[in-house]
Amino acid sequence: MKIDGKAYRTIWLDDDGWGVRVIDQTRLPHRFETVRLETVDQAAHAIRAMLVRGAPLIGATAAYGMCLAVRADDSDEGVESAHALLLATRPTAVNLRWALDDMRARLANQLRGKRLAIAYARAAELCDEDVAINEAIGDHGLALIREAHDRRGDTVNVLTHCNAGWLATVDWGTALAPIYKAHEAGIPVHVWADETRPRNQGASLTAWELGRHGVRHTVIADNTGGHLMQRGLVDLCITGTDRTTARGDVCNKIGTYLKALAAHDNAVPFYVALPSPTIDWSLDAGRDAPIEQRDGYEVSHMTGKTESGDVVAVQVTPDGSPVANYAFDVTPARLVTGLITERGVCDASKAGLAGLFPERASWPSPAASPKRGPIATKR
Amino acid sequence: MKIDGKAYRTIWLDDDGWGVRVIDQTRLPHRFETVRLETVDQAAHAIRAMLVRGAPLIGATAAYGMCLAVRADDSDEGVESAHALLLATRPTAVNLRWALDDMRARLANQLRGKRLAIAYARAAELCDEDVAINEAIGDHGLALIREAHDRRGDTVNVLTHCNAGWLATVDWGTALAPIYKAHEAGIPVHVWADETRPRNQGASLTAWELGRHGVRHTVIADNTGGHLMQRGLVDLCITGTDRTTARGDVCNKIGTYLKALAAHDNAVPFYVALPSPTIDWSLDAGRDAPIEQRDGYEVSHMTGKTESGDVVAVQVTPDGSPVANYAFDVTPARLVTGLITERGVCDASKAGLAGLFPERASWPSPAASPKRGPIATKR
Repeated sequence: MKIDGKAYRTIWLDDDGWGVRVIDQTRLPHRFETVRLETVDQAAHAIRAMLVRGAPLIGATAAYGMCLAVRADDSDEGVESAHALLLATRPTAVNLRWALDDMRARLANQLRGKRLAIAYARAAELCDEDVAINEAIGDHGLALIREAHDRRGDTVNVLTHCNAGWLATVDWGTALAPIYKAHEAGIPVHVWADETRPRNQGASLTAWELGRHGVRHTVIADNTGGHLMQRGLVDLCITGTDRTTARGDVCNKIGTYLKALAAHDNAVPFYVALPSPTIDWSLDAGRDAPIEQRDGYEVSHMTGKTESGDVVAVQVTPDGSPVANYAFDVTPARLVTGLITERGVCDASKAGLAGLFPERASWPSPAASPKRGPIATKR
Repeated sequence: MKIDGKAYRTIWLDDDGWGVRVIDQTRLPHRFETVRLETVDQAAHAIRAMLVRGAPLIGATAAYGMCLAVRADDSDEGVESAHALLLATRPTAVNLRWALDDMRARLANQLRGKRLAIAYARAAELCDEDVAINEAIGDHGLALIREAHDRRGDTVNVLTHCNAGWLATVDWGTALAPIYKAHEAGIPVHVWADETRPRNQGASLTAWELGRHGVRHTVIADNTGGHLMQRGLVDLCITGTDRTTARGDVCNKIGTYLKALAAHDNAVPFYVALPSPTIDWSLDAGRDAPIEQRDGYEVSHMTGKTESGDVVAVQVTPDGSPVANYAFDVTPARLVTGLITERGVCDASKAGLAGLFPERASWPSPAASPKRGPIATKR
């Protein structure tokens, strides 16, 4: 997408053809800075310190981390040690393991001298695949926004939660891909961006990327969405997801469930955009998903820019008051109008998903996929 | 209630018997400071600058402001001008007008030399009346917590939103009065305190007053309550209200509606505590209540304490991103399990309210009470 008129991806090769450049997302929205990665250690740091976040972007960064590792040492031992190093950065991130395993498999049994070229080619391919998936999600979601526009004949108001935008992927994003597509198609669209406490991904990342690309948006406190829906100010909701179960329950950023309840109560369509790799075919009921609890500091403190331009953290709770920080919740499928995938839009149900992905929804027992563990891929 | 073992009200007379002392609530939770008011101008400033907030406390401060005015000038002109000055501080606050009109009426047709004593006596009476109402709410709500405790045989977890505690009243609070009563009765109780963006009254005021009084509590992001209810971690919800309609629709801090939806979806009882003066007998449907929109600065900025102990505001949104700040929402009566009033607990319905307040619920036309206008009494 664009930053003030110039097209970007979240990760790319520098002009020298080997150094990897990423946006330092910890500096957003107050500063736009890019960082060059030259070693696997730097790539690991970028993931660990959350310069990059979002499952697809973490996977892409890990893939390029493997390239940088091979550049320094293309032995089997070098590949193994890079795999272990990168995997440990965000141990519960599904795409991270998947990308690393894929890279390692491509390098196995290859002549050492050929490994570097293979690695860079595959990393580029993984990025392009992510972009293609997200663009397809965007096209399918665009149809929903177009319908809403035809119905209203006016600006379409979309509410989103957290950041499932291009910053969380290589490009386009998931929940925001349909918005960018609508914007490109000239359909007037306006986004209500939930602030998304405690980490404020909506107020910082979603608002920033929409603003820089030129998409109309308004930041609201997380408490506000229900009132907006009661007053007819939301035409549809689109969120992302960290994990969707085989029957369509949606694990996503804490607070998603509350918005889905409000949408249901006000007959506002509630869609979830997802690349199919985030479907957990081995899990049926969302309530069985373990929910990560994160550091209470994220609740007790808030980071922002002072009048003098410094970015600092301030404590918002009283000294000594305990805090709790549940990172995700589960929205039951009954509250989800539809799932927007790269293959099309389907019901949030076993039958709906099986219709689009017959090869995964085997019967009688669901295809096992070893990706259980706390959900912690998106910041 | 107590602050670290010492009993306080939110407003009281200094030892000299005429100076008025209040807690500077703008400094909470990071500093506890009291301020002495000696003139009507200082009282007006305390309301306008929100050193005091919460409908009952605003009313009490205005009443004492009238005393300070009479002390300086006990003429009819003096009384009129103080009435006008104080009324303009928070023009939409229901209790403010009510307390001011009451004080003015008591002073009318009285000898000038007697007015000062009458004013102080009436102001003290208004404060005591507020305390008595809230204590009665506490006793009625206590029964609900006791039932929950008998059912569970374990700590009762209560979720609350915003601050409807003793800091918003003269003492006890409304939603928190039952909590303090349960704590006093030795019933183990734990409060989930919603942060309550954008003004953070939960994270700052509710957490502070519960902590200082010694009540167990945990601060959570506003997004969290639905998940807690899904996992059985909330036994009941109790919130306050700024205005309740004759049929039991509840206007309260933005985000209350979302918690009521989650409570309903998980069969968690959802109670609203209210002193009867906040019932708007002239209004039937909550959706007809105008909703105040406040300054976007409250959303774009957050105030807290830096590492060095300074209290500063930081900007959390990107430069140039628009924000919206709706202050209240309406929870339809169908989602409210019951209303806790000073006369007892009733259904959130016309019949329920009429049962407790037969003198107000006249038929066929509801008793008119001229208190329409944007809801803006509680900070």
